[in-house]
Amino acid sequence: MYDVLIIGIGCAGYTAAVYAARYKLNTFIVGAEEGGLGNTAAEVGNWPGIQEITGPDLMQNFKNHALSFTEQVTHKNARVLKVEKGQGVFHLTLDDGSTVEGKTLIFAMGSTKRHLGVKGEKEFSGKGVTYCATCDAFFYRNKVVAVIGGGDSAVEGAAIAAQVASKVYLVHRRDAFRAEPYWVDQVKAKSNVSFVLETNIVEILGEQKVTGIKIDKPFEGSDMLKVDGVFIEIGGDPATSLAKEIGCTVDAKGFLEVDNAMRTVVPGVFGAGDITSASNHFAQFTTAAGEASVAANSAFNYLQSGH
Amino acid sequence: MYDVLIIGIGCAGYTAAVYAARYKLNTFIVGAEEGGLGNTAAEVGNWPGIQEITGPDLMQNFKNHALSFTEQVTHKNARVLKVEKGQGVFHLTLDDGSTVEGKTLIFAMGSTKRHLGVKGEKEFSGKGVTYCATCDAFFYRNKVVAVIGGGDSAVEGAAIAAQVASKVYLVHRRDAFRAEPYWVDQVKAKSNVSFVLETNIVEILGEQKVTGIKIDKPFEGSDMLKVDGVFIEIGGDPATSLAKEIGCTVDAKGFLEVDNAMRTVVPGVFGAGDITSASNHFAQFTTAAGEASVAANSAFNYLQSGH
Repeated sequence: MYDVLIIGIGCAGYTAAVYAARYKLNTFIVGAEEGGLGNTAAEVGNWPGIQEITGPDLMQNFKNHALSFTEQVTHKNARVLKVEKGQGVFHLTLDDGSTVEGKTLIFAMGSTKRHLGVKGEKEFSGKGVTYCATCDAFFYRNKVVAVIGGGDSAVEGAAIAAQVASKVYLVHRRDAFRAEPYWVDQVKAKSNVSFVLETNIVEILGEQKVTGIKIDKPFEGSDMLKVDGVFIEIGGDPATSLAKEIGCTVDAKGFLEVDNAMRTVVPGVFGAGDITSASNHFAQFTTAAGEASVAANSAFNYLQSGH
Repeated sequence: MYDVLIIGIGCAGYTAAVYAARYKLNTFIVGAEEGGLGNTAAEVGNWPGIQEITGPDLMQNFKNHALSFTEQVTHKNARVLKVEKGQGVFHLTLDDGSTVEGKTLIFAMGSTKRHLGVKGEKEFSGKGVTYCATCDAFFYRNKVVAVIGGGDSAVEGAAIAAQVASKVYLVHRRDAFRAEPYWVDQVKAKSNVSFVLETNIVEILGEQKVTGIKIDKPFEGSDMLKVDGVFIEIGGDPATSLAKEIGCTVDAKGFLEVDNAMRTVVPGVFGAGDITSASNHFAQFTTAAGEASVAANSAFNYLQSGH
């Protein structure tokens, strides 16, 4: 019987493991996608103290840190198929057939960015195709980029990209935006942003790296736009299905609801990182790490209070 | 006229500067105590990805990162004497007589840990005397420590210390604790914690490092306790006086009140780090960095919305 079960092996999960280990809690951390969304960042420039690092390298550092607590932390690369809640105990069933029990549970499985599903997308992922404009825009100084989507993250992403890129295409399949009007107004005021509306991407083109996108409706006379980067911002799906099975609630956008102490509504169950509604939905390495620290502290407090 | 003024040059301030710079905001960061409270940590083991580093080294990395954005970030080591709010502009008066103006303001001045004011305290600061049991307890495995105080952080600190230390003295000037009863119960249940009540510390003893404390009332027949570490947890004072002058509010414990987006009640003014009530009052490097990222993002949003 572990003190803490952590589901998710990205930024939030590993940080929670570091904190839990430092509280001397017997910790089991499990997940299927090592490094989580962090692993998809070609370059990370916003992890404080490190001016530039690759996402996989940063996540490897996090993992090494968590696993350095050899007495406290057990790590397993597996998918969790089922979570059940017993009397003061949580049971996990993993895809290797094994089961694990723990007194507390931290959900840190993040949010899966939606993919376009077009030709070239997978091939150029990390080579110009990225799923986080806020994270990656800075690396496209004086380059040309396309931002795909019509929600807040797409339009905010276009605004951020326009600060550094020489040219931004905002490509959206509809003629109106779901994003907050003020974001749309801001982007409209930028002279280096072109709106490519009622348009779908057909293919992402490139050789070693992205060189352009093919669209289903000509724009300024061409069905091909030359771009150096494609920021796909068509939403994410927080991985909350397991949490909901044991009674955790989600907010209007589908994110795991937590309070200021990162507690879900189920006693002994906490959340951290992109899966949650915390930090104003601003999903960053920093916010995930902060939330995970609080979640582990709250798990410790919960155990100390006699559970 | 700067886009963002950041007051505070510790973990939160430098992180806010990194984020503001990446948004291409013209940023001025100023503070009197470089590295903030982070600089007082002899060893940091809970900054994810780094298994062990000194507080000053970690804070130097943060500073270097922020200052690497040479076009966007102006850094000044000075004390802010006065903050004034004009029409869409904030004015700072510094102790070198200069003034600075900006459109938004982020308070990130942290919280000053209260000192005992006894002989030896200053001399052995960082050499056994520490002000954060949660941060530093882990480095006292199988050692003897004294935790000083009667509030939540002292008693929680004693509980955490008891997980790793061989022996913990909880020294409190009263016979009852302000801390939550369940924390007190938990500490009472630990066989390796001794309660040294209605007792004041007179002096911290040592040579190169702390070797003991002198107390004003004999305990088990002696007015000297041999200890390797002294954790002084007698509270902190969030540096909110400047913020209050321009109308920001504080919570019941005196911390700057912020919402989920790290906005204070004054438009254009944000908070991050130990000064705030955020992250469940859990003051860590990780939570300060997370909050600072959100604060900078919110300042950017505020400016984008036409202010």
